[in-house]
Amino acid sequence: MYRLHGFSQSGNSFKAAFMLRALGEPWEAVFVDYMAGGQNRQPGWRETVNEMGEAPVLEAAGKRLSQSGAILTWLADRHGRYRGRDEDERYEVLRWMLFDNHKFTSYFATYRFMKAFGAAEPDPAVMAFLKNRIDSAFGIVDKHLARSDFMVGDAPTIADISMCGYLYYPVEESGIDVRTAYPNIAAWLQRVQAIPGWADPYTCLPGERIAPLR
Amino acid sequence: MYRLHGFSQSGNSFKAAFMLRALGEPWEAVFVDYMAGGQNRQPGWRETVNEMGEAPVLEAAGKRLSQSGAILTWLADRHGRYRGRDEDERYEVLRWMLFDNHKFTSYFATYRFMKAFGAAEPDPAVMAFLKNRIDSAFGIVDKHLARSDFMVGDAPTIADISMCGYLYYPVEESGIDVRTAYPNIAAWLQRVQAIPGWADPYTCLPGERIAPLR
Repeated sequence: MYRLHGFSQSGNSFKAAFMLRALGEPWEAVFVDYMAGGQNRQPGWRETVNEMGEAPVLEAAGKRLSQSGAILTWLADRHGRYRGRDEDERYEVLRWMLFDNHKFTSYFATYRFMKAFGAAEPDPAVMAFLKNRIDSAFGIVDKHLARSDFMVGDAPTIADISMCGYLYYPVEESGIDVRTAYPNIAAWLQRVQAIPGWADPYTCLPGERIAPLR
Repeated sequence: MYRLHGFSQSGNSFKAAFMLRALGEPWEAVFVDYMAGGQNRQPGWRETVNEMGEAPVLEAAGKRLSQSGAILTWLADRHGRYRGRDEDERYEVLRWMLFDNHKFTSYFATYRFMKAFGAAEPDPAVMAFLKNRIDSAFGIVDKHLARSDFMVGDAPTIADISMCGYLYYPVEESGIDVRTAYPNIAAWLQRVQAIPGWADPYTCLPGERIAPLR
């Protein structure tokens, strides 16, 4: 039985939850109270659950895994699904997951968090800096998806499950209408949503939905 | 014969160059004129070399690989070295390489580039935002290295080769004295530097050294 530490606002937690659902594996959620309590940033949590201070964390087979990309890879290898059809595809999957962590999810997730949930009003220069990087990364992915149904090969992989992680949240949270700005990403999100097990992040994971602060 | 597209100011290119040197494999460098010409951001380069617009790119065995983490993994798997001693270690290596791309190399490399080489004077709010994230990521790694000689297990892996990528450049480029602020990282950099093949980034890769603009 898998145990996934996470919370609904965390798109990185959603990536792992979506994968477990796509695999049809039984799992239970362990709520990480980040939004109200900053639980995962506290020393006790870091020492016992994840020194990186981040959700998600997957407990599985006596192990404790963190980093959504490592969790997705471990699950894909273990179950032999969504990992790419051959070795070449698997390095391509890794390549896009690294790009995701570095530039695609990363800046978008930070931007959304600061806009919707940050305690202080975000600095406009910082938001402009992030928005510029989002535009660059999303432009690259939209172009890639103009000639490919999925990120790697012609079937869904963990690269898709990783990269869609923050894109099913309501537009008002980020204030960025990704589907209108990037039509190829919009069409791909429809295809990813057709993977069995897909559900809205707020129904996959514990943690009450919070209205955006701004 | 490996061909590595990169340039000396790119710590991500250095990661791949250091790995090729550590493996003792013959390779040749293909100069990417990013600093003076923005070559890798131009449409022609993107279409023929790397759609992500980034160095490094490794040409090997008829393939073209990008993303330093994917290149390091491919080389480690192919040569059976620096990949971790068993499967558990290999997922830990992946975990730290993802953290590196997301938070450790990522913000530090951007900060250094904007300070030393950016065309425009960087916005102080953006620099403060990045510095805050650098402090957080470097604090996590320093704590980890207080109880471990290398990032994973007791021998060097591609996690070390990835994470050290931007830390052998002159302090004046970033303006951040990492070794003084983080003594465990400083001691680890000494150990990593003892890996056979290590050399200063400016001697590993083509591209003249440029004095920091500010």
